[in-house]
Amino acid sequence: MSDLSPTLDLAIDLMSRPSITPEDAGCQDVMIERLKNIGFEVELMPFGEVKNFYAKRGHSGPNLCFAGHTDVVPTGPESEWTVPPFSPEIIDGILYGRGAADMKGSLAAMVTAVEAFVAEHPDHDGQISFLITSDEEGPFVDGTTRVVDALMARNEKVDWCIVGEPSSTKTLGDIIKNGRRGSFSGDLTVYGKQGHVAYPHLAQNPIHLAAPALDEMANAHWDNGNDFFPPTSFQISNIHAGTGATNVVPGQLNAQFNFRFSSELDFDALKVRVIEILEKHNLRYDIEWTYNGLPFLTRPGELVDAIVDAIQDTVDITPELSTSGGTSDGRFIAKMGTQVVELGPINATIHQVNEHVDAESLNQLSSIYTRILKNLFANNQ
Amino acid sequence: MSDLSPTLDLAIDLMSRPSITPEDAGCQDVMIERLKNIGFEVELMPFGEVKNFYAKRGHSGPNLCFAGHTDVVPTGPESEWTVPPFSPEIIDGILYGRGAADMKGSLAAMVTAVEAFVAEHPDHDGQISFLITSDEEGPFVDGTTRVVDALMARNEKVDWCIVGEPSSTKTLGDIIKNGRRGSFSGDLTVYGKQGHVAYPHLAQNPIHLAAPALDEMANAHWDNGNDFFPPTSFQISNIHAGTGATNVVPGQLNAQFNFRFSSELDFDALKVRVIEILEKHNLRYDIEWTYNGLPFLTRPGELVDAIVDAIQDTVDITPELSTSGGTSDGRFIAKMGTQVVELGPINATIHQVNEHVDAESLNQLSSIYTRILKNLFANNQ
Repeated sequence: MSDLSPTLDLAIDLMSRPSITPEDAGCQDVMIERLKNIGFEVELMPFGEVKNFYAKRGHSGPNLCFAGHTDVVPTGPESEWTVPPFSPEIIDGILYGRGAADMKGSLAAMVTAVEAFVAEHPDHDGQISFLITSDEEGPFVDGTTRVVDALMARNEKVDWCIVGEPSSTKTLGDIIKNGRRGSFSGDLTVYGKQGHVAYPHLAQNPIHLAAPALDEMANAHWDNGNDFFPPTSFQISNIHAGTGATNVVPGQLNAQFNFRFSSELDFDALKVRVIEILEKHNLRYDIEWTYNGLPFLTRPGELVDAIVDAIQDTVDITPELSTSGGTSDGRFIAKMGTQVVELGPINATIHQVNEHVDAESLNQLSSIYTRILKNLFANNQ
Repeated sequence: MSDLSPTLDLAIDLMSRPSITPEDAGCQDVMIERLKNIGFEVELMPFGEVKNFYAKRGHSGPNLCFAGHTDVVPTGPESEWTVPPFSPEIIDGILYGRGAADMKGSLAAMVTAVEAFVAEHPDHDGQISFLITSDEEGPFVDGTTRVVDALMARNEKVDWCIVGEPSSTKTLGDIIKNGRRGSFSGDLTVYGKQGHVAYPHLAQNPIHLAAPALDEMANAHWDNGNDFFPPTSFQISNIHAGTGATNVVPGQLNAQFNFRFSSELDFDALKVRVIEILEKHNLRYDIEWTYNGLPFLTRPGELVDAIVDAIQDTVDITPELSTSGGTSDGRFIAKMGTQVVELGPINATIHQVNEHVDAESLNQLSSIYTRILKNLFANNQ
């Protein structure tokens, strides 16, 4: 046994396994063994190349699910790391290594939190579950979304979910995410007619044709957002037209765009608005839509209250509720009607070289998770 | 000796030489030998890899220059040719092979026209010259423009010039080009700030920033043209922005555009207008300009009259004067103050697979060229 806390011991064990997405590299086996030891029933749910598991303790009452992922993003240039990315080390109280913040630190804190809670409350109220995937950083096709489909098919009920995504920005617990915007992408092709720049009357320039429509979309007001969401935003991420030759009018233009949208809108409403603009400018076009995810929102209530109280009690700050940032697996879990909140360590270094997290903050995170369990499931004991 | 006319004999000889730009493949040697035989003084003027020559007969009076190029564009897929591209053949009165129309047919017609004229008028008025390059289809850096610079440096005067570019569209002589529009290109980079589409407030999208400026340029009215030129046209040929990832706001946008402009405008006037638009839209940008060529215009007068008369007399049609189409080496020659007219065969198949021309039209073209010489230089004999 090392001198480290159980949480840091487990975090370092998980971080030593090079589970670059969609690899799991044995992380889930480590978690499963620990959960089985404290009475969880574990169900392996692999899909394709992706390892997933669902584990549960308890048979009745509300189900609180801890959700997360064992896969990590690639390391980037290893020579730029202070420690080898899969040889985690604590230096001056800082834990370095890939996955420290996103999100093996959270996984370790979840396991030790539940171990501590179960030791004290072996006959707790409600049900505690884990939904763990190794495909959050990858294409997220065979991960959480497939597990959720399977759970829904058998009417498994998940009332509350805590996702271990690194939600904090300056200090542990300063921000929790009680929702995420939706994401919706379009791949637009505008058709013109190829020709020589010297004979413009024989050509139709798709760049010229598309410019006013793209300008209108870039400046459109899509909604006002609401109390929990900023206004919907539209960004063109890629635009390409041209043969490379400077004397040729190209035959078509391709543009890819993305919406991050509030809970005031849905896919259909956005589609209608986009098509209205394209039609108004009389474009000949094709468009392929990608439904990345609907927005989800967990309004203040029993789960949020339990989390806010646990943070206040443990680290003495009041978290801010936020729906900003990218998408997360929370969107898939929310499909079950689950209240979803994301709570994890500081996200400043995620996906970067020298990813790190304050070591003590992982111990605190474990305490917060334990306190949430107490707030929800220990009241009657 | 073959049964073919001297013009077709010479055209086939030249077309048998695979002079893909900037290669000359011995074409100029063939022409030089013929011209020396009828009293031309020949000056080799190679620059870099490019072969050029200037040849002249006569010592006083106006100088009429025949200009052209021995290089040709690549063949494209040889398997799609009816005859191998450098094994020219006449099939049912049609001469097939690379360079038939652009412009070894014209070169052959020029040489035989001058031979016929000199045979009849050995002591003709004026001076007859040839300015031939093997770099018209390539980068046109070491070709006609360099020869013109050298001629100007020694005050060589060229009053009139006939360029053998294939000017005809439906029938030989239906169109002659008495000018060409100018060409001016810009390579524009618009700077934004890269970021994640989920955090648009931290990014500046250069596609969004550039769209209204590009739209304004695409719809701008640059001038009205004049009696000889259509209005100036603006075309964006290439536009690129984006990392490929659909969730990243790119840091910059690149767009290439080209003006074909009338003799009402010049480089500076266009630059000022473009910069005005970019500044008005508060863009951060860089722009690199390429000065492809100023417009040139040969107003009706002695040269045009001689050409129109020769065409009417030979093929019984009245040519239309046009300044449409791309650029040609005429723009460089016009710098000398020369009146430049382009007159050559039908251009329908140039730069294509199975380039061809009506064989008899090359004999007629030679007759037209001879008649022009008579109109200008035989009056007093």
